[in-house]
Amino acid sequence: MVNVAILGFGTVGSGVAEVLAKNGEHIDQKVETPVRLKYILDVRDFPESPFQDKIIHDFSTIENDKSVDIVVETIGGATVALDYTRRALRAGKSVVSSNKELVAERGYELIQLASQMGVSYLFEASVGGGIPILRPLSQCLAANELTEICGILNGTTNYILTRMIRAGLSFEAALKEAQENGYAEKDPTADVEGHDACRKICILASIAFGRHVYPRQVPTEGITGVTLADVAYAESCNRKIKLLGRAVKELDGKICAYVAPHLIDAEAPLAGVEDVFNAIMVKGDAIGDVMFYGRGAGKLPTASAVVADVMDAARHIRSRKRVEWGPGGEDVTVSPEGVPFRWYVRCAGTAEKVRAAGLDAALLSRSGAPADEVAFLTRAMPRGELMSALSGMELGSLFRVLE
Amino acid sequence: MVNVAILGFGTVGSGVAEVLAKNGEHIDQKVETPVRLKYILDVRDFPESPFQDKIIHDFSTIENDKSVDIVVETIGGATVALDYTRRALRAGKSVVSSNKELVAERGYELIQLASQMGVSYLFEASVGGGIPILRPLSQCLAANELTEICGILNGTTNYILTRMIRAGLSFEAALKEAQENGYAEKDPTADVEGHDACRKICILASIAFGRHVYPRQVPTEGITGVTLADVAYAESCNRKIKLLGRAVKELDGKICAYVAPHLIDAEAPLAGVEDVFNAIMVKGDAIGDVMFYGRGAGKLPTASAVVADVMDAARHIRSRKRVEWGPGGEDVTVSPEGVPFRWYVRCAGTAEKVRAAGLDAALLSRSGAPADEVAFLTRAMPRGELMSALSGMELGSLFRVLE
Repeated sequence: MVNVAILGFGTVGSGVAEVLAKNGEHIDQKVETPVRLKYILDVRDFPESPFQDKIIHDFSTIENDKSVDIVVETIGGATVALDYTRRALRAGKSVVSSNKELVAERGYELIQLASQMGVSYLFEASVGGGIPILRPLSQCLAANELTEICGILNGTTNYILTRMIRAGLSFEAALKEAQENGYAEKDPTADVEGHDACRKICILASIAFGRHVYPRQVPTEGITGVTLADVAYAESCNRKIKLLGRAVKELDGKICAYVAPHLIDAEAPLAGVEDVFNAIMVKGDAIGDVMFYGRGAGKLPTASAVVADVMDAARHIRSRKRVEWGPGGEDVTVSPEGVPFRWYVRCAGTAEKVRAAGLDAALLSRSGAPADEVAFLTRAMPRGELMSALSGMELGSLFRVLE
Repeated sequence: MVNVAILGFGTVGSGVAEVLAKNGEHIDQKVETPVRLKYILDVRDFPESPFQDKIIHDFSTIENDKSVDIVVETIGGATVALDYTRRALRAGKSVVSSNKELVAERGYELIQLASQMGVSYLFEASVGGGIPILRPLSQCLAANELTEICGILNGTTNYILTRMIRAGLSFEAALKEAQENGYAEKDPTADVEGHDACRKICILASIAFGRHVYPRQVPTEGITGVTLADVAYAESCNRKIKLLGRAVKELDGKICAYVAPHLIDAEAPLAGVEDVFNAIMVKGDAIGDVMFYGRGAGKLPTASAVVADVMDAARHIRSRKRVEWGPGGEDVTVSPEGVPFRWYVRCAGTAEKVRAAGLDAALLSRSGAPADEVAFLTRAMPRGELMSALSGMELGSLFRVLE
């Protein structure tokens, strides 16, 4: 018998309880030992819930109960969740988490602690909701030297961009629609400013390249600056605007990681990822491009990823499972500032001015553009070089072009 | 030290030797014990190969060498490969295979034998080349009750269809081009008649649904009947023709599996899978749709999947890894004949005749169609019902419409 305690009875936590209950027989069969939900920790009571008899309010009950083998942390944030995760691991329990913020900020430390205690710290659900990505990265692609990870990692912003592209809604109108549909929070900052995608690319880069990449090392730009004019210019050159988290292994072995809107080829597989779907493209030296696609969020998809980790931890209760990486440091990453990219630029000015700037630019056009607006794609150059060439011109939008 | 022997020094076998050599350090680090290639078995000599000192010609050398822990079988077919796989497993060695024919025909038996011997039988490379699919199916999606697997499982036919759709080549011309580019064999039967896709859907269905599905239980139709007229009609209703392997769990728990060309929505993720790429869509009760995309064949992608299995077997040399399923049987599958589908029909006739047949048909049109040609989409119905309604009309093409 393997006993499980869930921390936090919110969307994901309650989803985990439901999946454990609904697919219980199927799960026991696969694990070869019964997996039982023993406690749910929350500050609230849930008198109407079928799980109300499992609800407790004191973490030390779980901490001190030797029969609890696996703790599921779905609290979120990096304060209380950090404290409980440390205490659970120290008490010799495996921890399964959907908390991307905690893994991105403290992953290395918690993996080390789990390793010392001979237990597992698993967090498949922290990236890409139910899409299997962390385990394939660390196991199935293990024979490859990975060179790049690039993904649509946030469903809210992908929904907003899809509605701007397909229905011609402004950013504000698309955001409002996303909120009405429950795809965006009342305070959408973490999504639209790219922080959520940043945490996810940190976790992916850490697994792929073997050293912890921290969010503060990853320059992050959201989609609040994307306009319908940009959408139209992108379409004019057969491209789509997508918010991408990217981590590229440079020739010196350092990791160039960032989150920003990109123009991508309309025929590329990532361009076909619409609405709230996520997709993660991985490049390896032997395998070439591999893509993983699915619902990046939502109660049941995320819960099913958590439960898969619970099953894996349960099967390896005496031989911990390893998804791990080495320590971070300033030597791990390189700033994207010095790296050349092709750019899309929209600014106030004229074709003559752009030509005079020596940018070797491919001019774009859209119907209804004001006379003093100009937009173009550049050759590959570092941002600083581009900014010097553009000095004196009022900048509208500046996005990378993915090739 | 873990010693490996490769059986068969063809495309995949030599790729495995190369990946082991090239990424050796990286692999040793991940496995935490050195993985060494000791023997390569082939009937030929390879005096020019850097691996020529490993080449042997007698399988019993491997069978009787207690220091060989893992045997990589890349011979193909189900005769010699079956004999050697059985003998390797009986000698207590784990076997890693890229041989889809053998797994599809004998998987259950070989998994049982591996289980009795306490070793692993792994075959990630047998489906989707380098795309991680079997392990995610059996592990990451383990908390789900899976309901359907549907995929573009053969790169050769997908290349041919892509060239028909994009370049307007006839089937014959596209096949010739594929052969010239090395994407199709001189005898293309196994690909274009769907046998290769059939073996892969058998393996996927067996893992997803837990019972062995044999190729003889899977009605299989290739793409030799697809014409440019069909491509044009599909385009007229915003669809694309793709060869799909499908396995659906019906309400009675039986599996309806088949391989056939389908009309699919041009906006669907599978429709964006072009050229030699493969993709596998999985539906689960909790996760919804998940898709895995990448190169489904090729020396290095396939070899990297084999090596990932080798690494996994090496890490679990004393605690075998399980990718497994139960026995097959006539009760496992249900014929697609009795299952209703929407159909695309192209036949000799007139709109009046079709209307008179009471098919509730949506008529299609294309430029340049002969006066006596008619094409349409039907409502969902079993094939038999459709065939009765069409009796007396000369049939051109009949494909399912995926919704």
